[in-house]
Amino acid sequence: MPYRAPTADFQFIFDNIVGLEQTYATEKFAEATPDVVEAILLEAGKLCDDVIAPLNRIGDLEPARLENGVVRTSTGFAQGYAAIADGGWIGAAASEEFGGMGLPFAVLTAVNDMMSGACLALQLNPLLTQGQIEALEHHASDTIKALYLPKLISGEWSGTMNLTESAAGSDVGALSTKAVAMGDGEYAITGEKIYISWADNDFTQNVCHLVLARLPDAPAGTRGISLFMVPKLIPDENGVPEIANTLKVVSLEHKTGLHGSPTAVLSFDGAKGWIVGQENGGMKAMFTMMNNARLGVAVEGIGVAEAAFQHALAYAVERKQGRTPVEGGRGTIVEHADVRRMLATMKSQVFAARSIALSCAVAIDMGNATGEADWRDRAAFLTPISKAYGTDVGIEVSTMGVQVHGGMGYIEETGAGQFTRDVRVTAIYEGTNGIQAMDLVARKMMDDGDAAFRLLEEVENNAESARGQFPQMAGAVWASAETLREATEWLVSQDDMSDRFSGAVPFLKAFALVLGSHAHLKAAMAEEGEGPRTRLARFYVKRLLPEHVALLQHVREGKKDLFAITAEDLGA
Amino acid sequence: MPYRAPTADFQFIFDNIVGLEQTYATEKFAEATPDVVEAILLEAGKLCDDVIAPLNRIGDLEPARLENGVVRTSTGFAQGYAAIADGGWIGAAASEEFGGMGLPFAVLTAVNDMMSGACLALQLNPLLTQGQIEALEHHASDTIKALYLPKLISGEWSGTMNLTESAAGSDVGALSTKAVAMGDGEYAITGEKIYISWADNDFTQNVCHLVLARLPDAPAGTRGISLFMVPKLIPDENGVPEIANTLKVVSLEHKTGLHGSPTAVLSFDGAKGWIVGQENGGMKAMFTMMNNARLGVAVEGIGVAEAAFQHALAYAVERKQGRTPVEGGRGTIVEHADVRRMLATMKSQVFAARSIALSCAVAIDMGNATGEADWRDRAAFLTPISKAYGTDVGIEVSTMGVQVHGGMGYIEETGAGQFTRDVRVTAIYEGTNGIQAMDLVARKMMDDGDAAFRLLEEVENNAESARGQFPQMAGAVWASAETLREATEWLVSQDDMSDRFSGAVPFLKAFALVLGSHAHLKAAMAEEGEGPRTRLARFYVKRLLPEHVALLQHVREGKKDLFAITAEDLGA
Repeated sequence: MPYRAPTADFQFIFDNIVGLEQTYATEKFAEATPDVVEAILLEAGKLCDDVIAPLNRIGDLEPARLENGVVRTSTGFAQGYAAIADGGWIGAAASEEFGGMGLPFAVLTAVNDMMSGACLALQLNPLLTQGQIEALEHHASDTIKALYLPKLISGEWSGTMNLTESAAGSDVGALSTKAVAMGDGEYAITGEKIYISWADNDFTQNVCHLVLARLPDAPAGTRGISLFMVPKLIPDENGVPEIANTLKVVSLEHKTGLHGSPTAVLSFDGAKGWIVGQENGGMKAMFTMMNNARLGVAVEGIGVAEAAFQHALAYAVERKQGRTPVEGGRGTIVEHADVRRMLATMKSQVFAARSIALSCAVAIDMGNATGEADWRDRAAFLTPISKAYGTDVGIEVSTMGVQVHGGMGYIEETGAGQFTRDVRVTAIYEGTNGIQAMDLVARKMMDDGDAAFRLLEEVENNAESARGQFPQMAGAVWASAETLREATEWLVSQDDMSDRFSGAVPFLKAFALVLGSHAHLKAAMAEEGEGPRTRLARFYVKRLLPEHVALLQHVREGKKDLFAITAEDLGA
Repeated sequence: MPYRAPTADFQFIFDNIVGLEQTYATEKFAEATPDVVEAILLEAGKLCDDVIAPLNRIGDLEPARLENGVVRTSTGFAQGYAAIADGGWIGAAASEEFGGMGLPFAVLTAVNDMMSGACLALQLNPLLTQGQIEALEHHASDTIKALYLPKLISGEWSGTMNLTESAAGSDVGALSTKAVAMGDGEYAITGEKIYISWADNDFTQNVCHLVLARLPDAPAGTRGISLFMVPKLIPDENGVPEIANTLKVVSLEHKTGLHGSPTAVLSFDGAKGWIVGQENGGMKAMFTMMNNARLGVAVEGIGVAEAAFQHALAYAVERKQGRTPVEGGRGTIVEHADVRRMLATMKSQVFAARSIALSCAVAIDMGNATGEADWRDRAAFLTPISKAYGTDVGIEVSTMGVQVHGGMGYIEETGAGQFTRDVRVTAIYEGTNGIQAMDLVARKMMDDGDAAFRLLEEVENNAESARGQFPQMAGAVWASAETLREATEWLVSQDDMSDRFSGAVPFLKAFALVLGSHAHLKAAMAEEGEGPRTRLARFYVKRLLPEHVALLQHVREGKKDLFAITAEDLGA
């Protein structure tokens, strides 16, 4: 079945779960009225359904390839990209000063979710440009802004992020690419970067690389890193890209999935670059970009999960097999208890993960619009949860989609397998999900858990107010928040970070389950009478939420027994 | 890192967990003495390490292909197969009358585990032949036995299973391939079968297809199915394969993994076949084969999980990244809490799944050797648990292996991704894991749960005896068995099968966690002093076992809220 953008779901979540209307009340987003948002969702949805989704399988079958140093992209990707750029989607949340639409980030996040579901390999390109736009808006000089932003926002040029080197992955501070000042804010960049998504293409006039590098006398580690704009073609003062910079695509990786997205080794040989932000202030600039990029990756996972779910559902309602237990039903496998269990698991997880991600996006918008610390802290806390849960759901739902297909799921022509292969990397890049969890229990709890406790209070208050209408569900959600509160209190009282890190991943998942249940409960409350959303909420709260108890038990074991297991014990 | 067969682990499990010595005491297996078993494990291990494992990546890169109707296999597979056949491994458990070794099935299962870890794509070929040997031993006429068994056992010929048709997958009874009697026990077979693993090759003299088909006046459903031997080349009375039968390989599938194993559509056009077993008795004959084949698939999952674990561990002890928290440690990522958590999860799950599978294999052996119903019931009960948990562990461990590798895990050259792609189908074929769970809660509980309760009694008695030595672990295992007993009692009291099926998958996993903890506790008890096995046991019991509570809560929800969710609710 072809992908259909779930625009009504986004609208429902905006209206009933995450309170997008709060952004309408701010000056910054005054123009993003409800009717504008509705029109935006429908228009983006139509683009995804009609133009982008048909490219997904082509990208898998015809990988991007390197020919004489130039990347050739999959058939149709150039046209798909042009449609995205022409629609103004790349700069949907960018400042209007340089041609952006200035929409709330929450709306862009919904659009990115749809684009990811339609064709993740292509969507990575505009997503990276969006991150670059944001970094430049916050940190670049006026000259660089004026030169680059209009081109990036229009999509004439695209952007990339260059962090990783072979010895510097999660440990960005270990990077060794060099930058030497040449005067006039110009630098010579030399080094080799790996895993550069969309390092090149054959459909934009220029490719702009944001590169992390180290000045000659810079301090060791992350405090000695600076950020540079290093374009493929150096623009003249009118912005016409003219002279080829001294950088090249060395090779493309053979990846498990995302074949349509070229992932390159990129080599810089004294390439000209311009500093973005302060010398040795590269990490700060990069973090601006990375935080929102992490939310972009969250909805990559969620978007693919949505597509995999739709695909599996379409198969399950058509495929006849065995005697089905529902009298007067369709007589297809959707009636079988276990298939239904899988489909309900998939749909309810997508809803939960999407609600968390959009809640995070609204907090980012409110932080930007009001400057209030509470909003910013909330966004910071929800970011790693959104990223890790969203992408874990992407993996779990897509692999369940294969299972729903039975033997057909293993045949590539079906398309079910591609979702699992494409989405797999989302749990790894932009900080592995393990790193996200460490970020959550360490950096994001330097406030002694204030942001966490505020969220839990919100969950509990809402559950209290739902007790009359949904006594069982409300009781379960309230109790889960209490259990999580106790575990959080335990966690923030651990001074040895290893005690926090040992259970970081289970803690993050437990937090997501509680927030997911909160969203489902709100959905039930918003529904008139007992409808589909209430029934799905009940499934999630009664059957999936209970895992939080086991996860939090894991958390409270701390490091002791885990660290007792040596590498030799494991067989090394 | 190259694969190393974990022979010491098999020996430990045989000696301390599953009681292989019980088979030594039977007349049937009197010759399989401890020193013979030890020598067998070492010899098979050496073959896997030196000859088979190096083929794994080649099979992925050079898929089997169809050329003018003939399958061409990956480079080196012919030599690898010859080494397996020459070692006598195909007939390791087959009757000595026809050239087999007559070893316990448990020993063969350990060998199959190693072979799967070394190269699953190749291992499928001998595994299918083993299943065919077993079906012929139990159900074929003496003429067929004499003609086929020596050739299959020696590996000169290979065997396949032909069940599935495009409209008959899990619902085998829906098949429509026709068989018409031609006199003298000969039949003409016409129809099309799909998903035929190793339907052809270029290294055996003949390929023998066991085909399920329907006689003209057969009853509908599974009661009207008969089983036929349909060879690619029809042998003369001296067993020389001479005349080409009227069957052909129509096409090969493009699968997500297992590229070295050709999966075919096979078409029979009045092909000559000979009946195996009684007319309309095909399902009975097929079940003999399928039950043990399911255990073969269980160790496919476990073997790949072992290989993926070893691969991830080797990377984790070499890769330096970030500041590691263990003073005086290796300074590599194996020291990071979350990496260690993942590796401990992987290793402890492999041990648990392997112990369950080998316990099932010993029960099969004891059933065959003694004819006692209790042993047979135990084997029947443990089969679906072994299959589903073993293959789920295969998927979970291999995807965790990718995660341990970080970005490198997504690059195919690393080999981590191949494990996830290869193992994915094991949760689907030989009865999906959903079907296994349905089998467990329905057919395998027609004894009102007797087999289940006997297992739980064993778990509880052992936990009782461990209370002095390991009070915490023993207490946790004992309590989990009690919780599981209550859920089992609830389950067997449900007459509406939908109430059982709705929680069948969670129930199976909970049962596996309890049995896995039981095996870990026994391992700790067998260890002198507190060593690696005790530390790993503590990890599994304290951090992974607790999930059983949530799973059993899911079970006891029954069908009500799940069946309330309609296909329309899901979006259909």
